[in-house]
Amino acid sequence: MEYPSKLIEEAVNEVSKLPGIGKKTALRLVLHLIKENEVSTFALTAALNKLRANIVFCKYCHNISDEEECSICRSHRRDRSILCVVEETVDVLAIENTSQYSGLYHVLGGVISPMNGIGPSELKIETLLQRVSHRESEIKEVILALSPTMEGDTTAFYVSKRLKDFPLKLSSIARGIPIGGDLEYADEITLGRSILGRTLFN
Amino acid sequence: MEYPSKLIEEAVNEVSKLPGIGKKTALRLVLHLIKENEVSTFALTAALNKLRANIVFCKYCHNISDEEECSICRSHRRDRSILCVVEETVDVLAIENTSQYSGLYHVLGGVISPMNGIGPSELKIETLLQRVSHRESEIKEVILALSPTMEGDTTAFYVSKRLKDFPLKLSSIARGIPIGGDLEYADEITLGRSILGRTLFN
Repeated sequence: MEYPSKLIEEAVNEVSKLPGIGKKTALRLVLHLIKENEVSTFALTAALNKLRANIVFCKYCHNISDEEECSICRSHRRDRSILCVVEETVDVLAIENTSQYSGLYHVLGGVISPMNGIGPSELKIETLLQRVSHRESEIKEVILALSPTMEGDTTAFYVSKRLKDFPLKLSSIARGIPIGGDLEYADEITLGRSILGRTLFN
Repeated sequence: MEYPSKLIEEAVNEVSKLPGIGKKTALRLVLHLIKENEVSTFALTAALNKLRANIVFCKYCHNISDEEECSICRSHRRDRSILCVVEETVDVLAIENTSQYSGLYHVLGGVISPMNGIGPSELKIETLLQRVSHRESEIKEVILALSPTMEGDTTAFYVSKRLKDFPLKLSSIARGIPIGGDLEYADEITLGRSILGRTLFN
C-alpha cells in the first residue's frame, strides 16, 4: 500500500510491529490519532515512555512492580507457605482475578523452548531455588501453573526435578473439563486427563 | 482488574482509548512492550509524536500530506477534470489501491451527522465549492464516493444540492452486488439497487 505521507508510513510500520496488529489495523489506529486532538497522542506516548523507562521487576518474584518489592511479596495478608510458579505477569493477573489463591508467586519469564533458543538459564529458575532454600523461607508447597503445552510440560518437568531434593509439597494445577464445558466437545486428551485426575466426593 | 503497577494501569488506560482495543488487548500490548527491548517502545512513541506534531493536510484536497500540497494534487499525471469527493483519507487510500481512478480528490473530513453534532459547516464543503468555482478550475465531473449509510446519503444529497448550479457532471459510485458476491446471499436493498442501476451490454 502507498501511504499519503512518510510520517504515516513510519508510524504504521512501528504500530504494526505490535503483536496481532497488521498494517490495516495500524493504519486505522494512526488515522484515528490524527483525527483526535493531539493531546491524546501525546498522553498515549508519554504513558508508554514513562512505563518503559521506569518499570521495575520485583527482586523476589520477578513480577512487574512499582518498587523493588512488589505489593504481593510485601503484603502481610498473603500465605507465605505456598508459592505458585507461572510463566508471565499475565498469569499472575489471571490467577489473582480468581480470588482463589492467597499465596506468593514466582514469575519464570517464559518457558524452556530450545526452538526459540530459551534454555533453563534464560529463566528465573536459580532465584526460585534460592527462594525455597533460603534459611528464612517459609515455603512448604510449590504449585506449578504452567501452560499445558510441550514447552510448559518440559519446564514443569525440569523445575520439578530441580526442586525434588527440597522438603516441599509439589503440585500442578488441575487439568480437566472447563466449568460449563460439554463432555461431548472436549478433546480426548483433556477428557482422558480429567478421568485420570478425578476427584473424590467427600 | 487490578494491575501490578500504576505505570501499567496508566499505559493500559491510554492504549485502550484507541478504537477497537479493549483493556485486555491493551494489557497484552503493554506487556509485550515491556518484554521487548526498550528501544522498540521509544521508536514507536517517537514515530507517533513526530507524526502528530508534523502532520499536514493538503490545502486543496485536505488529504493527509507531507507538504502544503499533497502528492496527488501536485502530480502532472492526474486528470484534473474529475474530482472524487470522499469522507476520509482511508477512502483515498482504498480508491488509489484499485488503480482505476486517476483524477483528483476532495476529503470532506466526515459526513453530516446531527446525532454527533456534525453539520455541513464542520465539513470541508465550502472549499469544495471554491475549488469547482475557481476561475482556473478544470473540473468537469464530480464523483460522490460516500458511504451508503443514512449519514452518507444525507451528505451526498446536501453536496449535490450545493453543486447543482455549476456546469458539472455529478455522479455517484455504483452500488450493487460485489464482485464474487452471491445473488442468493445479497440483501434485498443492495439487490434492488443493482437491478435499478443495471448497466447495458454494448
